[in-house]
Amino acid sequence: MSSFRHDHLLSIAQLNVEDVLQILDAAKAFIEVSRRPVRKVPALRGKTVVNLFFEASTRTRTSFELAGKRLSADVVNISSSGSSVSKGESLLDTCKTVNAMRPDIVVIRHSASGAPELVARNVGCSVINGGDGSHEHPTQALLDAFAIRNSFGTLAGLKVAIVGDIMHSRVARSNAKLLNLFGSEVRFCAPRTLMPAGAETLGVKVFHELEPALEGVDVIMLLRIQRERLEGPLIPSLREYSRKFGVSQRHLQYASPRAIVMHPGPMNRGVEIHPALADGERSVILDQVEAGVAVRMAVLYLLAKEPNAGTPAQAASIPPPG
Amino acid sequence: MSSFRHDHLLSIAQLNVEDVLQILDAAKAFIEVSRRPVRKVPALRGKTVVNLFFEASTRTRTSFELAGKRLSADVVNISSSGSSVSKGESLLDTCKTVNAMRPDIVVIRHSASGAPELVARNVGCSVINGGDGSHEHPTQALLDAFAIRNSFGTLAGLKVAIVGDIMHSRVARSNAKLLNLFGSEVRFCAPRTLMPAGAETLGVKVFHELEPALEGVDVIMLLRIQRERLEGPLIPSLREYSRKFGVSQRHLQYASPRAIVMHPGPMNRGVEIHPALADGERSVILDQVEAGVAVRMAVLYLLAKEPNAGTPAQAASIPPPG
Amino acid sequence: MSSFRHDHLLSIAQLNVEDVLQILDAAKAFIEVSRRPVRKVPALRGKTVVNLFFEASTRTRTSFELAGKRLSADVVNISSSGSSVSKGESLLDTCKTVNAMRPDIVVIRHSASGAPELVARNVGCSVINGGDGSHEHPTQALLDAFAIRNSFGTLAGLKVAIVGDIMHSRVARSNAKLLNLFGSEVRFCAPRTLMPAGAETLGVKVFHELEPALEGVDVIMLLRIQRERLEGPLIPSLREYSRKFGVSQRHLQYASPRAIVMHPGPMNRGVEIHPALADGERSVILDQVEAGVAVRMAVLYLLAKEPNAGTPAQAASIPPPG
Repeated sequence: MSSFRHDHLLSIAQLNVEDVLQILDAAKAFIEVSRRPVRKVPALRGKTVVNLFFEASTRTRTSFELAGKRLSADVVNISSSGSSVSKGESLLDTCKTVNAMRPDIVVIRHSASGAPELVARNVGCSVINGGDGSHEHPTQALLDAFAIRNSFGTLAGLKVAIVGDIMHSRVARSNAKLLNLFGSEVRFCAPRTLMPAGAETLGVKVFHELEPALEGVDVIMLLRIQRERLEGPLIPSLREYSRKFGVSQRHLQYASPRAIVMHPGPMNRGVEIHPALADGERSVILDQVEAGVAVRMAVLYLLAKEPNAGTPAQAASIPPPG
Repeated sequence: MSSFRHDHLLSIAQLNVEDVLQILDAAKAFIEVSRRPVRKVPALRGKTVVNLFFEASTRTRTSFELAGKRLSADVVNISSSGSSVSKGESLLDTCKTVNAMRPDIVVIRHSASGAPELVARNVGCSVINGGDGSHEHPTQALLDAFAIRNSFGTLAGLKVAIVGDIMHSRVARSNAKLLNLFGSEVRFCAPRTLMPAGAETLGVKVFHELEPALEGVDVIMLLRIQRERLEGPLIPSLREYSRKFGVSQRHLQYASPRAIVMHPGPMNRGVEIHPALADGERSVILDQVEAGVAVRMAVLYLLAKEPNAGTPAQAASIPPPG
Repeated sequence: MSSFRHDHLLSIAQLNVEDVLQILDAAKAFIEVSRRPVRKVPALRGKTVVNLFFEASTRTRTSFELAGKRLSADVVNISSSGSSVSKGESLLDTCKTVNAMRPDIVVIRHSASGAPELVARNVGCSVINGGDGSHEHPTQALLDAFAIRNSFGTLAGLKVAIVGDIMHSRVARSNAKLLNLFGSEVRFCAPRTLMPAGAETLGVKVFHELEPALEGVDVIMLLRIQRERLEGPLIPSLREYSRKFGVSQRHLQYASPRAIVMHPGPMNRGVEIHPALADGERSVILDQVEAGVAVRMAVLYLLAKEPNAGTPAQAASIPPPG
């Protein structure tokens, strides 16, 4: 194995095809660890991972925490409520302070686009972007890629429709970049008020109606509508949004017969996704969650650059001591 | 050892006498682990325990967390504040998401009666009810049984008075069921406004006066009066409640000379229990807390069904590596 | 090594010169652990450390948590929000409950001066004062001493100016006591409204002007101005405070040429400290943070009195198993 060429994971934009495949192949080795009776390997014993979350996210924090623990790293959670942040300390001071405690890897979630990159330039440890504003959420795109590749055996030549609040979605941006890398066709579908200006410059096709957007697609990826937006000026009403952009079983007729349904969660059932579709046989939503732990194990492992632990496959095969 | 016959611990109602004794005997082995200089055994190394608390409870969460860690499991805490719950995700979606991360055991505390059972029917991992609404709190009843058995050598033939807000108490319900199993007499004592209709159908004797309820009892178990209720319509006033149902040293005269005093905590000193009684020689309140960790170790151990770790006594006797 | 003669670390006042040096020497051994690729030793495996924080403090909690984990202890965090505390339980009941779960060491942060001492008299485990009201913050003073000793090779014969809200500062009190022990000169500098009456009785020199306070000092230690105080009656205005007591690069001219700049964090840049000074070459602010983990490892290690782990230097040199 050649070692991972990056010190940080800040965006999909920084990755090339080989980087993505290196991560996904490592995740394939690590997903088995979580399925065993002993869900743990000693690969990152003695490493420190800090989850530094300036925005609440149970799902992502728990996924990184489990990923770290299953690699035997020590994991420390810091959330902004009750933190120095609320005492007015600057982002950089908080991060430099954490860095002075000598973690190996810090996972940062922040409401400001670019925050993890700013931090990475100012600390000595590795930084993982756990979601920054409406910019990027690279581990989400990687876990989505894992689930897509698991269904189709490839990330190339697919048609993927991403439906929902594109404007505010770092998930949409990261997924578009990753799928473009592999030459898949990405379609964004949203009401005009939730579509960013110049979306086409991201290399995607823009739709404002559901049916044409879903025509022949292999992947239907739905995005969460934030509750707070449902009462704002961008969406006329819940019922109106759901009627025009909510996806249900009947919409599968427009897609490819092998189409899968994805959602990064948490879902608003009955708003952007119909319950029967969420729980139906085309849904891979829970596979995404499982892939999340594996992809994060892979990223932590690759960034930690622990040569004694061997290749990811070797690291995933060694039981813990005792 | 025959292995534990249940996949979940949802209620005392699901248990028979042998089940309860199996748990209490295992707890007896595990209580020693917490008393050693090295308070840890490798029995559940590589297992994942998730504390999923939709209601705040430091005491129960900490007890389960320590129980898991002393068995060498990886423990992850999720509390509803800051979780997907506050984003409107359904209970089942949250639990299925957690389950997709492949925990071995999830401990659920929820304000809705029946929530853990609903979850157990929908996930692949083991579920422990950490307290659901006013329904059940099985590990509390088991730790109470541990403390009672420790004092009297038996759970049979005893008289137990449970005093306080019976109406809203899952602790009262779980204790009544467990003690009934063993043929002990359970008495509920509360003002009429805090006694559920039809309490007799639970197989208990109902009292509305303290003295006759305590007559000859072996156990005086006091329940916490929720502060918020003290200002509600169910209780006329704090002073009135305390005068009629608050228990102090002088009440011991009505009970058996060997009577013990219990409280699940947190206590309102001076309301339902007089400080001198709480700290007196008949109080086993802190023994209950210690038993809590041991009983939860036992339940985690039995549900994890880890054959390589041997019987609970064997598992409790093996030091951690290193 | 003779073992540590204290069961608790409640204050600097309880320590003599030998005690301080024993802790600082142990910290010197442990600081290397955090700098290695494998940042962990097995010294406190099977020990339980509880962080019981009745006041929010990310920095101190994280530092203790990392210290515990790098010694292989199990660490459990309890914060007051969502705890029994908010249910009205008394401090002592909360602490006795935690103690009944058989931790080895409890770290207490509380807004009431003397709370940790009260607790220590009522529990069987070791207690560390993680900051109590405006009384003491002994591990902060010890980590400051570590950083000072690291710069000057000694704690004796130095001149140290502590500038800021002395009145409310446990950090100022603990530092004054420690530095007095070693015969260094301590100067307190604050506006009259933020200087406690009778400060001279602490063995310090009192100043109300910055320049004379800094004259010839080896250490400039700045204290955080609490934001809430900036709008209170004690400080006329932010600008006024900053103009008269904010320290910048130009103030270095008054100090010794080898002077270092310290701050316990979190900093209000532009209020009590000018950004260029905070980030300048005389600043040891981030060294303080790193020293914090090492000093807390030392204190945990010495209080745990684990003879099998050997001297701190031996304990720091043994790799974890596996």
